[in-house]
Amino acid sequence: MAFQKPPGTQDFLPGASEQWQYVERTARDVARKYRFREIRTPVFEATELFQRGVGETTDIVEKEMYTFVDKGDRSMTLRPEGTAGVVRAYVENKLYGEPELSKLYYIGPMFRYERAQAGRYRQFHQFGVEAIGSEDPALDAEVVALGYSFYKEVGLTGVTVDINSVGTPEVRAAYRETLLGFLRPIKDTLCKDCQSRMERNPLRVLDCKVDQDKFEGAPSILDSLDEACSTHFARVRQYLDDMGVPYRVNPRLVRGLDYYTHTAFEYKAQGIGAIDTIGGGGRYNGLVSQIGGEDRPGVGLGIGLERTVMLLESQNAKPDFGPAVDVFVIALGERAERETPGLLYRLREAGLSADKDYQGRKTKTLFKAADRIGARFAAVIGDDELARGEVGLKNLKTQEQRQVPIAAIAEAVRQWNEHDEEGLAQ
Amino acid sequence: MAFQKPPGTQDFLPGASEQWQYVERTARDVARKYRFREIRTPVFEATELFQRGVGETTDIVEKEMYTFVDKGDRSMTLRPEGTAGVVRAYVENKLYGEPELSKLYYIGPMFRYERAQAGRYRQFHQFGVEAIGSEDPALDAEVVALGYSFYKEVGLTGVTVDINSVGTPEVRAAYRETLLGFLRPIKDTLCKDCQSRMERNPLRVLDCKVDQDKFEGAPSILDSLDEACSTHFARVRQYLDDMGVPYRVNPRLVRGLDYYTHTAFEYKAQGIGAIDTIGGGGRYNGLVSQIGGEDRPGVGLGIGLERTVMLLESQNAKPDFGPAVDVFVIALGERAERETPGLLYRLREAGLSADKDYQGRKTKTLFKAADRIGARFAAVIGDDELARGEVGLKNLKTQEQRQVPIAAIAEAVRQWNEHDEEGLAQ
Repeated sequence: MAFQKPPGTQDFLPGASEQWQYVERTARDVARKYRFREIRTPVFEATELFQRGVGETTDIVEKEMYTFVDKGDRSMTLRPEGTAGVVRAYVENKLYGEPELSKLYYIGPMFRYERAQAGRYRQFHQFGVEAIGSEDPALDAEVVALGYSFYKEVGLTGVTVDINSVGTPEVRAAYRETLLGFLRPIKDTLCKDCQSRMERNPLRVLDCKVDQDKFEGAPSILDSLDEACSTHFARVRQYLDDMGVPYRVNPRLVRGLDYYTHTAFEYKAQGIGAIDTIGGGGRYNGLVSQIGGEDRPGVGLGIGLERTVMLLESQNAKPDFGPAVDVFVIALGERAERETPGLLYRLREAGLSADKDYQGRKTKTLFKAADRIGARFAAVIGDDELARGEVGLKNLKTQEQRQVPIAAIAEAVRQWNEHDEEGLAQ
Repeated sequence: MAFQKPPGTQDFLPGASEQWQYVERTARDVARKYRFREIRTPVFEATELFQRGVGETTDIVEKEMYTFVDKGDRSMTLRPEGTAGVVRAYVENKLYGEPELSKLYYIGPMFRYERAQAGRYRQFHQFGVEAIGSEDPALDAEVVALGYSFYKEVGLTGVTVDINSVGTPEVRAAYRETLLGFLRPIKDTLCKDCQSRMERNPLRVLDCKVDQDKFEGAPSILDSLDEACSTHFARVRQYLDDMGVPYRVNPRLVRGLDYYTHTAFEYKAQGIGAIDTIGGGGRYNGLVSQIGGEDRPGVGLGIGLERTVMLLESQNAKPDFGPAVDVFVIALGERAERETPGLLYRLREAGLSADKDYQGRKTKTLFKAADRIGARFAAVIGDDELARGEVGLKNLKTQEQRQVPIAAIAEAVRQWNEHDEEGLAQ
């Protein structure tokens, strides 16, 4: 019997994993520029944390969580998103007591038992940031800009930003009534999802893809904002203008989570077919106290890495990862073969990436193998070379070959590399 | 109510997470030099995979697994170790059909419900490699050397290597009888663990820490090796000698897992107190077929990253991560404050790490804040500077200050940095 990976999960094999490494390196580098520092929280948390932090009536908590009872009889859940755990850690580790604002980022796996479909995975990966401890609208703009910078740096084109203000809970309660006044008379014309969603969460109805044409005269939440909310939103937009980050105000944008206040935003891109949301976030001024901490305002974002990688592939934006191996050593004969492991070790200690054949293949097939693994140089050792303490170093790109003393291989490879690069630069 | 992380798990906060990043970067770089490429497998797998791949009678499978039933009624388990998943992926993705040997590495979280104790975590992290597709003893030596290189590169001192040959299953069956002949007469003098382990797995009895003194005349497995096993082991040792990797032959070394054949090895280091095993591995020639694949030989290792990080701390081997921020912008007055987000964005686009205050703190406290976050430069903008399109750029190490055009800040920081570094190098 052969085993299979769990449904809805993926293996990332060599060839794909380098793309993920590149995307993660880019995320870390963008976080560094914005002075966000990494936090790592456990992969599972107490189930109640997500009930409280994500919301008991959300689809995530109602239907999609991987929940289990551990051997100590505690209900635990594989994290379905990143914010709740980070806020829990912020509170538990008393980061609110530090003189500086907490600017945190995370990269890691999340888990939702969703219906299997293209581009949706049960184990998926997010890059997220959380800035906790300030109400400054400049921080909202900073977080929006950080995500935009990430997509730009990673090499995606055509990413657009939608932003909205969802106000405070009070503003939202008032707007809810206004909106229901508009929706109730047309209820029968709406899709089933909208009808069932209407009384529970009318704001999300406006986000419906099916019924968009029926909402033309719908009241805008922006007309319901009080002065503080309007000022906050105006500042965020001004800062984005100053930065030159392009955005579109979308008064129908509400995120799936109830805890957002003021700014909500999404990144969209032309996927394979439709325009998809590829990331988003918002301000959450009530969440920290809801999770049991002192009341601190926060703002954050989450970016889906599966979608980022898929879009990079569909845009054919494959970065060049450079040659995979510096030196592939080819031994001619048994004596040379025996000397190769020691030689490899010295090349590696000198900082080079080096490898050999371990499958007992014929010499003439090994140059092909060296090409296949992306080697820059082949180092050939035969008995003659061994006696002279030399190898035949062959540049596999130019086919040029030189005899080089064994002790000087690393140096020769480095010089030759530099020389090549100068040549290419000219 | 405030939430807590699950017992036996950890939060890695800024300050600690940089250490983890450093250790992981080092692991990736060492893997690159040995031409191992990353594989990422799901965090959970079918429970049966671990029953088959780790062994149903092991402590791990019997007592320590996080097992749950998913919403599709499948028994799933959070991976307690890395090899089973990698071998499953090797088989499922038919990597055995590729012309090249599979040299794979992984870094990630593992889960065991162990008794809570110092240095033992229920979510822990491993760097591991698996080389599948060759019986060449040079590959055993390569894997042993890779782990040794990792510890060296990461900056640990005093790491030693123990190696042994545990032969083939046939060799082990014969040795088992010889050993039982020695152990049975002294059974009553042994500790309780040893007594209960004796009939199930007598080889592990010799590993007991309590009874070491009673095993002086015990037969050595090395005397039971057949010719093929002896030759393989002699070659591994010869290659390690050639590489200059120091090791100790320890005929009592058996690893916790039953699937090892031929080479078994462990890395040990002086921890806080006793000498601890900090990593290890071995050859597993029967495992791939046991997991349902074609019969391919393999060899691998697993390195505990918690222990690596703890040892680095106890050896005070903290690497220097460089200045945390390039520029901290200090605005004097409201107009300058409003200009700061746009300025920050441009600095970041130019590749610099930059930040400002978001907590409305008084200017005079901000130089202290800049120091605290490890900023290299403070950029001061007041109304005068703004009018002239300049900032006052202050080197926080030398306290030197210059007026610099806003558009030229990034360039000035870079030049000043280089100048400093030259100064330091002299």
